[in-house]
Amino acid sequence: MRFSASVYVALKPGVNDPQGNAVLGGLHSLGFSSVADVRVGKYLTLDLDAPDESAASAQVGEMCEKLLANPVIESYRIEVGPAGS
Amino acid sequence: MRFSASVYVALKPGVNDPQGNAVLGGLHSLGFSSVADVRVGKYLTLDLDAPDESAASAQVGEMCEKLLANPVIESYRIEVGPAGS
Repeated sequence: MRFSASVYVALKPGVNDPQGNAVLGGLHSLGFSSVADVRVGKYLTLDLDAPDESAASAQVGEMCEKLLANPVIESYRIEVGPAGS
Repeated sequence: MRFSASVYVALKPGVNDPQGNAVLGGLHSLGFSSVADVRVGKYLTLDLDAPDESAASAQVGEMCEKLLANPVIESYRIEVGPAGS
């Protein structure tokens, strides 16, 4: 069965985020002075085949540990649902 | 009042995604042959001050149009809630 997974990867709290700081500076330059903090992460969508939803979720978890995220400095969250939803 | 906004930026369907293709190739190399497609986007979290939630949401929408996303090739989704939630 085909599943669609969304993976949200974010830097752990306390980890320096130069990209987020650059975006924050850009927003301030554009006049958005109300913004106090920006953190930039990754948002991945995967289509994969698996026998059931829990197997799909376990597979994606393994992908995160091995490639999609750096578990030392990043945390991730996975959402799995039927493809096309 | 302080709000926390999550912004999900993804390439529109049909737009070529070299980064996603590279990740797909990497996953296949690692043995995850069940993955059929990968798309890579951005996941930003912002802390900002606004009088109410709808004002915060409108502000973040403007930021997306001006800086955070490229509306020509990217779509975005915004979630706003009280900071610290």
